[in-house]
Amino acid sequence: EMLRRVLCAVLFMGALPSLAEGSQGHISVVLLGATGDLAKKYLWQGLFQLYMDQVSSGHSFTFHGAALTALEPGQRLMFDVLKKLACPPDEAPNRCAVLKDQFLKLSQYHQLKTAENYTALNREIETLLRQEGLKEAGRIFYFSVPPFAYTEIARHINSSCRPPPGAWLRVVLEKPFGHDLQSAQQLAAELTSFFREEEMYRVDHYLGKQAVAHILPFRDQNRQFLDPVWNRQHVERVEIVLKETVDARGRISFYEQYGVIRDVLQNHLTEALMFLTMELPANMSRAEEVLQCKLQAFQSLRGLEKNSAVLGQYQAYASQVQEELQKAQDYISTTPTFAGVLVHSDSLRWEGVPFLLTSGKALDERVGYVRVLFKNRAYCTQSETLRDAGHSQCKAKQIIFYIGHGALNTPAVLVSRNLFRPVMPEGSWREAVGQSDLHIFGQPLSDYYMYRPVKERDAYSVLISNIYHGRKDFFITTENLLASWAFWTPLLDSISYQPLRLYPGGVENQHLLDFEMVSGELAFTVAEPVELLNPNRVMPSDYRTIQSKFRQSPLVSAWSEDLISQLATDIEETARRTVAHSGRFHLALSGGSSPVVLFQRLARHHYAFPWKHTHIWLVDERCVPLSDTESNFFSLHNHLLQNIRVPYFNVHPMPVHLNQRLCVEEDRGTELYAKEIVALVANTSFDLVLLGVGSDGHTASLFPRSDNGLEGAQAVVLTESPVKPHQRMSLSLPLINKARQVFVLVLGKGKHDITTLLSRVGHEPRKWPVSGVSPSSGQLVWYVDYEALLG
Amino acid sequence: EMLRRVLCAVLFMGALPSLAEGSQGHISVVLLGATGDLAKKYLWQGLFQLYMDQVSSGHSFTFHGAALTALEPGQRLMFDVLKKLACPPDEAPNRCAVLKDQFLKLSQYHQLKTAENYTALNREIETLLRQEGLKEAGRIFYFSVPPFAYTEIARHINSSCRPPPGAWLRVVLEKPFGHDLQSAQQLAAELTSFFREEEMYRVDHYLGKQAVAHILPFRDQNRQFLDPVWNRQHVERVEIVLKETVDARGRISFYEQYGVIRDVLQNHLTEALMFLTMELPANMSRAEEVLQCKLQAFQSLRGLEKNSAVLGQYQAYASQVQEELQKAQDYISTTPTFAGVLVHSDSLRWEGVPFLLTSGKALDERVGYVRVLFKNRAYCTQSETLRDAGHSQCKAKQIIFYIGHGALNTPAVLVSRNLFRPVMPEGSWREAVGQSDLHIFGQPLSDYYMYRPVKERDAYSVLISNIYHGRKDFFITTENLLASWAFWTPLLDSISYQPLRLYPGGVENQHLLDFEMVSGELAFTVAEPVELLNPNRVMPSDYRTIQSKFRQSPLVSAWSEDLISQLATDIEETARRTVAHSGRFHLALSGGSSPVVLFQRLARHHYAFPWKHTHIWLVDERCVPLSDTESNFFSLHNHLLQNIRVPYFNVHPMPVHLNQRLCVEEDRGTELYAKEIVALVANTSFDLVLLGVGSDGHTASLFPRSDNGLEGAQAVVLTESPVKPHQRMSLSLPLINKARQVFVLVLGKGKHDITTLLSRVGHEPRKWPVSGVSPSSGQLVWYVDYEALLG
Repeated sequence: EMLRRVLCAVLFMGALPSLAEGSQGHISVVLLGATGDLAKKYLWQGLFQLYMDQVSSGHSFTFHGAALTALEPGQRLMFDVLKKLACPPDEAPNRCAVLKDQFLKLSQYHQLKTAENYTALNREIETLLRQEGLKEAGRIFYFSVPPFAYTEIARHINSSCRPPPGAWLRVVLEKPFGHDLQSAQQLAAELTSFFREEEMYRVDHYLGKQAVAHILPFRDQNRQFLDPVWNRQHVERVEIVLKETVDARGRISFYEQYGVIRDVLQNHLTEALMFLTMELPANMSRAEEVLQCKLQAFQSLRGLEKNSAVLGQYQAYASQVQEELQKAQDYISTTPTFAGVLVHSDSLRWEGVPFLLTSGKALDERVGYVRVLFKNRAYCTQSETLRDAGHSQCKAKQIIFYIGHGALNTPAVLVSRNLFRPVMPEGSWREAVGQSDLHIFGQPLSDYYMYRPVKERDAYSVLISNIYHGRKDFFITTENLLASWAFWTPLLDSISYQPLRLYPGGVENQHLLDFEMVSGELAFTVAEPVELLNPNRVMPSDYRTIQSKFRQSPLVSAWSEDLISQLATDIEETARRTVAHSGRFHLALSGGSSPVVLFQRLARHHYAFPWKHTHIWLVDERCVPLSDTESNFFSLHNHLLQNIRVPYFNVHPMPVHLNQRLCVEEDRGTELYAKEIVALVANTSFDLVLLGVGSDGHTASLFPRSDNGLEGAQAVVLTESPVKPHQRMSLSLPLINKARQVFVLVLGKGKHDITTLLSRVGHEPRKWPVSGVSPSSGQLVWYVDYEALLG
Repeated sequence: EMLRRVLCAVLFMGALPSLAEGSQGHISVVLLGATGDLAKKYLWQGLFQLYMDQVSSGHSFTFHGAALTALEPGQRLMFDVLKKLACPPDEAPNRCAVLKDQFLKLSQYHQLKTAENYTALNREIETLLRQEGLKEAGRIFYFSVPPFAYTEIARHINSSCRPPPGAWLRVVLEKPFGHDLQSAQQLAAELTSFFREEEMYRVDHYLGKQAVAHILPFRDQNRQFLDPVWNRQHVERVEIVLKETVDARGRISFYEQYGVIRDVLQNHLTEALMFLTMELPANMSRAEEVLQCKLQAFQSLRGLEKNSAVLGQYQAYASQVQEELQKAQDYISTTPTFAGVLVHSDSLRWEGVPFLLTSGKALDERVGYVRVLFKNRAYCTQSETLRDAGHSQCKAKQIIFYIGHGALNTPAVLVSRNLFRPVMPEGSWREAVGQSDLHIFGQPLSDYYMYRPVKERDAYSVLISNIYHGRKDFFITTENLLASWAFWTPLLDSISYQPLRLYPGGVENQHLLDFEMVSGELAFTVAEPVELLNPNRVMPSDYRTIQSKFRQSPLVSAWSEDLISQLATDIEETARRTVAHSGRFHLALSGGSSPVVLFQRLARHHYAFPWKHTHIWLVDERCVPLSDTESNFFSLHNHLLQNIRVPYFNVHPMPVHLNQRLCVEEDRGTELYAKEIVALVANTSFDLVLLGVGSDGHTASLFPRSDNGLEGAQAVVLTESPVKPHQRMSLSLPLINKARQVFVLVLGKGKHDITTLLSRVGHEPRKWPVSGVSPSSGQLVWYVDYEALLG
């Protein structure tokens, strides 16, 4: 009845579509949480905008607000909101007033609490449509409710509110979508039991931000310019930034559970990252192809480690937590309110290019942007004064997707004029001239081509329009969501006890939150200020190297980081001395986890290492193929060989994989390796052997009570490990003891007991093989970190 | 007699040293070419400075000007110069006047033309010393004469003017030291027949420029700051620049033979380059160690190619050549007066860092500098306005050795304040405050720590002082000189017919000489202007790839460089397609010389090649150890594998060297390789096999009438080559023909006959094995260059 009246009014207006166009069918929009904050602030306005835009689309609409509140107070609350709906400035006031009136008439409130409530809603929709003689096109259920309510509501919708066959169902979900990979998987599994993938529209409202939404179309429309430069050869770095001035006050109960990474980085900034890094499918209009490319881009991301991030917390946060969550005075929150994260993609296109994701609360300005900075590959022969006049190739080259706020205070796309004039869709973006005196990212605005949206649109109104149009590529699919959580969860796990840098907030932060990249890690630029969240942490300046004796041999001890640095320096020095003397350096390296840090250090800090003259041998190997991740050689290759330039001929992996089988005695791998050593290493005396120690006292792959390798003439032996993979190949103790130098590296608390024991026992290789390490004419040095030494 | 008078005068002055200090011995300085331009302008002043500095050193001096001119006019000419010697501003005028008077008295002119003249000079020195009762410390002969006179003078000195045993001889030589590697070797050989290496002081006056001379000490004294950042991880680029406003007018007869590369880049800029790139020896005071490090740095330089340089010539040069050399109107000079060269060092420290060497005449300003620009690794969270206030990490980081002229108009060392405060030797450099409004390299002068010499010294006076002190590390040794020529000569050869960009000169050059790096090559930024120096040269755009048929298969033909470039592109495309499809790419490569250029091109220009997923196999191998320079694998390793990042496991050299012996049948290397192929390559179908053709029609190591490999089931065979080394291992023809794609590369005139023959004959593998290449289900493509195709 009400609908008919509205439709009559529409006809009466004349300017609006005829009833015949209603043959496209009817759409029912159900807004769950209709009286909540998000609904008040954005969603009703977005739905009104949808109605204004689509009133002549041929679809007819009804809007159903729903909440737990009883009918009458709920109705009152909801219509208070609806009455305040604004007419956008570009809409004729007359038309808007009429449409607003119609919109109010097409909207009604429902209490949705019990199963019966849902059945009743479904019946009402059916009755209305039957009465009006309208075909049903589809139903939209917008979940603007806390995530704990999702499953219950989903169950009701699935069992009572599905539209009849031929009409579609779209359920719109708001974050948070879980707390980590596991919880996200659980939530996804529950939802999947009620809805099909294509029915679910997970909102990331960043995808509704005009500048973010335009990244992919921009890349597609400017392929001819971008193809040659959109890669690691040309891009110096990418910054994806969302800075806020507000803090978390009033939202602490939510924020304390999530923190900045879950709140902003895992979703908004990650989506922008994907739009930048993914390969473009040939056909951009196929959502499925776009999604596949995006998922592939996730696969290329290099795993995050603890030191991939710098974290901070504004100072007032602690008292806000105590206040809003009624915590005790000594309660310490470890929730970060600021994060800078260094992300790398290992795709061929992006390998080595740093992507810096940054977000925080209580910062000095509110601004969001995605900034692609290109390398300067030009040399300008003319002097600087002259150079600055034109759009010289020596000026910075950038492409910026300006999301909003900040100095520009508008969404924008900026392209340095010395790059190219971009192709932009005329209907939606127009070239703009900025304030001439404004500088942005180090350059005057006049250095850029700048484009602004023809019509600035709120993210939610964009998203609601996309839901209406079924543009699934603007929403987060389950696979996409889980890929993102899979990427972020390891970092979230590893930082849970990380110290946070406290910052005062606002402009007073000064340089406190500036950070920099150091060998693939992030660190704050300004040295740690005195006030630390965790004051018990030992400071780097307190580290000192102890020089002493252990088992009658020289001992070098320090905190692990310094110890590794010292060991790497000592190895390089030995190498240089040996090469200077004999032209060659024969280095035998152990497997296991301790040397990994050493390998990385050698690769990243020792540029003058004489690799060209170094032969690399293995101390021991697991009987798996060399390219197996369990292989010692694989780890050595990954962390060292890949990153240095040692000639192929100088690399000597153990022959554990002969004739396509592993460590079979009759393939005589041990003999082969021994022969190779005899042929190349003078007197079979390695210049340096690096060993580790197991908590059972094993070294190399020589285990307690081993039948082979602890004595006898055999240089290389097959042994059995108590842990998998059991089969091993190892240099023998007698061969190791012929070395000119042996370094034993022992790291970590887990080695404290064996270290203590070794400091007391004598030469008992059958019980503790490492106690048999005693070079006959060479030197033995122990490198033991404080944790192993002191526990 | 004269000497005694001076020494008496010295004693009389009181302030000057006593005769007893003369016990250090006497030094005779002989300046050959005493009346020439260089002597007038710099050398006499430098010798006078030496005298002023060393008058109280305990050495006594005499100065002998010499030239071809007869005694009397020569004397007159020389003393006209000496009378004009200036007193430096920091010297007390009184003292200087007295010293100048003494200097004149200690100086005399000699005609040195005949052997007798030299004998007479020697006798005069001996007589003088005997009369004065002085011990001889040494003799300095300064060659300020054209290089053609060197040998003659050297012979005379060696035979008649050597000092007695116990005293040293130092001969000082001025550039040019040859014209290319060969002429430099010849000149060096001649000089070496007269002088020992330690007697020769080859001057590069750039090493006397205070800022250049301070590069090594700066690196040494600031090791603690530089060690972490003086490498490819931190340095973005280095610019070594000498710009001049003057042109070559008046010097054309010299310049036309040399050009800017020989005049400036081969010597001055290269020396600065070496100071930047060489490893520092532990002990900087050992000239021999410094030299060894420098020579190693030369070894690490990547060879230059035609496209490593951009070249120009100022427009007026042509008419100046016609005028000064009396050339005809249509004479075209191909001498460059401007060059920008991109140099790479392949050392671990510098790999990938561009070093841009630039010099030219008739440019917009006169300036010389060495600029090290560091990468920006910081992200500044605080907004730009705030960031600019302090010495933010987000500002550019640079170290500049400012040689002179330009905006600063003084030698200086500048270090960005956000890097570190450098350690500078207090006696010779002092901190300076510059004009506050001056911007240099994009930043206000206040952003730098700036140091200026306490005493600005002319390069020649520095060098003469170094000769006196025997500081050989400030001079160019024979090895150093030849290393530099060995580096530059290939470029000089390859550019002799390159087109030059004409430029008007001065500020009017605008952006015409700006250039940029594109895939490891240099190119002018502004498109080629219409006016070209050599309009007849075929431009790259005129080259066209001929697409046709050869032996019923597709043929690609072009000039060899373009052909290689096309082939590399096609291989990459095949690789990418294959990896996208099957995740792996199996590539079998041939040995020989033709593929070397291809390997280099793949390594340097194809960054997006999916090496990580590529397996590399050998088509054939010589039975020598893999590290033998004759080995195909060795060449592949040298030119390709070293420079890319292909995993160790993916490299499959042929097992020609088993059990420490070569290709012994019972070691079953062929079976081993065949098994490896079976295990990894699906259906034993390589994705791509690259073949060559011998002039006898052989391909792979399958020779005419071979017993093995032309047919039959064996996948890998041992064969006999008619040329050494005779023994070979090779893939068999049937295996090659199973490949999915086969490319045959044929290059050069030497292959014209076999190419012609092959175009006529049918399938006769026993006569011409390559005629049997006919993939059963794959594709065959011929890549034949114009020389091979057309003769």
